[in-house]
Amino acid sequence: EAIGGALKLDPAFRRKIEIVTKCGIYIPCEFHPDRKVAHYNVTAARIIKSAEKSLRFMGIDEIDLLLVHRPDWLTSADETAEGLNKLLKDGKIRSAGVSNYNVHQFDLLNSRVDQPLVTNQIEFSLLHMDPIDDGTADQCQRHRILPMAWSPLAKGALMEKTDPAAVRLHAKAAELSAKYGGATIDQLAYAWIMAHPSCPLPIIGTNKLGRIQALVKAADIKLEREDWYGLWEAAKGHGVP
Amino acid sequence: EAIGGALKLDPAFRRKIEIVTKCGIYIPCEFHPDRKVAHYNVTAARIIKSAEKSLRFMGIDEIDLLLVHRPDWLTSADETAEGLNKLLKDGKIRSAGVSNYNVHQFDLLNSRVDQPLVTNQIEFSLLHMDPIDDGTADQCQRHRILPMAWSPLAKGALMEKTDPAAVRLHAKAAELSAKYGGATIDQLAYAWIMAHPSCPLPIIGTNKLGRIQALVKAADIKLEREDWYGLWEAAKGHGVP
Amino acid sequence: EAIGGALKLDPAFRRKIEIVTKCGIYIPCEFHPDRKVAHYNVTAARIIKSAEKSLRFMGIDEIDLLLVHRPDWLTSADETAEGLNKLLKDGKIRSAGVSNYNVHQFDLLNSRVDQPLVTNQIEFSLLHMDPIDDGTADQCQRHRILPMAWSPLAKGALMEKTDPAAVRLHAKAAELSAKYGGATIDQLAYAWIMAHPSCPLPIIGTNKLGRIQALVKAADIKLEREDWYGLWEAAKGHGVP
Repeated sequence: EAIGGALKLDPAFRRKIEIVTKCGIYIPCEFHPDRKVAHYNVTAARIIKSAEKSLRFMGIDEIDLLLVHRPDWLTSADETAEGLNKLLKDGKIRSAGVSNYNVHQFDLLNSRVDQPLVTNQIEFSLLHMDPIDDGTADQCQRHRILPMAWSPLAKGALMEKTDPAAVRLHAKAAELSAKYGGATIDQLAYAWIMAHPSCPLPIIGTNKLGRIQALVKAADIKLEREDWYGLWEAAKGHGVP
Repeated sequence: EAIGGALKLDPAFRRKIEIVTKCGIYIPCEFHPDRKVAHYNVTAARIIKSAEKSLRFMGIDEIDLLLVHRPDWLTSADETAEGLNKLLKDGKIRSAGVSNYNVHQFDLLNSRVDQPLVTNQIEFSLLHMDPIDDGTADQCQRHRILPMAWSPLAKGALMEKTDPAAVRLHAKAAELSAKYGGATIDQLAYAWIMAHPSCPLPIIGTNKLGRIQALVKAADIKLEREDWYGLWEAAKGHGVP
Repeated sequence: EAIGGALKLDPAFRRKIEIVTKCGIYIPCEFHPDRKVAHYNVTAARIIKSAEKSLRFMGIDEIDLLLVHRPDWLTSADETAEGLNKLLKDGKIRSAGVSNYNVHQFDLLNSRVDQPLVTNQIEFSLLHMDPIDDGTADQCQRHRILPMAWSPLAKGALMEKTDPAAVRLHAKAAELSAKYGGATIDQLAYAWIMAHPSCPLPIIGTNKLGRIQALVKAADIKLEREDWYGLWEAAKGHGVP
């Protein structure tokens, strides 16, 4: 609702931002004493209800991008697609995407929606490189859609010097810093992600202005090939095969 | 031959049941002293020979569904498809399917057969959830075919309280039992499988009437979403990601 | 250049051999003091430069097959395809293939090239059977292209009796030797690979005449089905599932 208020104060602002919402995850919490088991739900009814709630809360007509938060094993692709297709048709969402879908799950849902999925938001960072090996980033390239990278700093693990890989990355970042205008490890980590040819967009789940500024600065860093591989090597602890 | 005899006693019965046979696995045993190494064989000649033997033994004209038991690394997809296509064309089998094929193996053989494969019989149970993550169940949904679930009780491991996951599942089943009409753990396990949107058909390799009755009863159980996820959680030993 | 000289001595010889080159891997070495980090580079510019250098060195007009040595995470498929497409169009290479690409990487690049990729050169041996399970060999069959098998003797590990799997394979090979005309373990290993229905071509990275002769002899060995599975069993240390 705070977002809704802000949007009403300056309607022009609405046209300048992308509003992305997620749906489908249900965690037991004090506001929902009826929930006992954490689960997913991406049935048509729930997707529609969730999107309409977001529209109402923000006082807007259309969500730019609605993401299905997690593959829900218990809902058929037909059922999920029905919900997304209805929202698209009714103009309540402009596009649909998914998050944490593996290649099979993405292929399946994509085969059912009337309008191709526009993104897959995946965990991707120097400490979680699976997407470049497990086909999810390749799939995005193939469909010419851009992935989004969540936890680009590995849930903070990259910033701490506890994990051995993080220690190696700090050393490598220190070595590279001067070459890239005094870049810090987080800036290099964002730049490393954005350099991938699938063009992932790092998601920063933060209110801290510093984090946002780091990302903006990182967008200007163009890592040299050997430095990109040097960071890969530091993360893995060994050279390329 | 016993089945053949029963079928002759009541020809009307033939039209009421589905006859499914499998082929392709060769295990050394006392009846086959020439076999020295357990292996697979799904060459066209062997598939045809095996199907014709089944027809003869049961005294029937047509097998409803012939399943290739295991992917045989040593036979080309063209060769296997040739056998299946011949049997389909000659009306000796009404449909063909596979068992234990991964997504790549299924895609390959499916690209060669004249009539799409109608099922993949896979190991699927509360103690073996791979199919919901490895793409095989998604592939079935995508092709709008129903998988079959073998070892729905995990080769009996679910019934014993040795495996820690089985222990947790027994506790959860005890908690849910009253809510689902005094359902036992095996009934809940069958219901859990059948609730998956790919609609797997549990295969019970048993002559025990009790097992069959449990399955029939399970077909009436409609697990609530949180209970399905509660069983998932008990099996995994942790909540959803 | 030695190859170039040999080709000039006997131009007819050129028409009798296939010239295959690889590109894309950059290892730091004394000749390249500027390289600090081992990395891949399959940008269009590098592919073209590398192919032209090979043509010049060998004094030939056309390379029969150019292989992209490794998937380079940092180059888009469009970019790599641009290089390959240019070389194909200019008649500098007759065909293009890849090496060490997983199914997703192959699918992606194959979707971008003007002429389908003709091979995937993969690690495949009795001690590295992944290709028969991970979809890469199935993908080759599906596209009706032949894979190439590198390290068919597992980087020599098959010849030594240190690895337990190698020890079992030596025992099995000794058992089978007489049946296959006194075949040695390396001949049986080559024959085992070539018997796979994807028809892999074993690559022997050697100048030793003995190795080449072994491969030639292996091409005449037709392993019986149970012996192929017997070698599989010896490698795995257990029977088929």
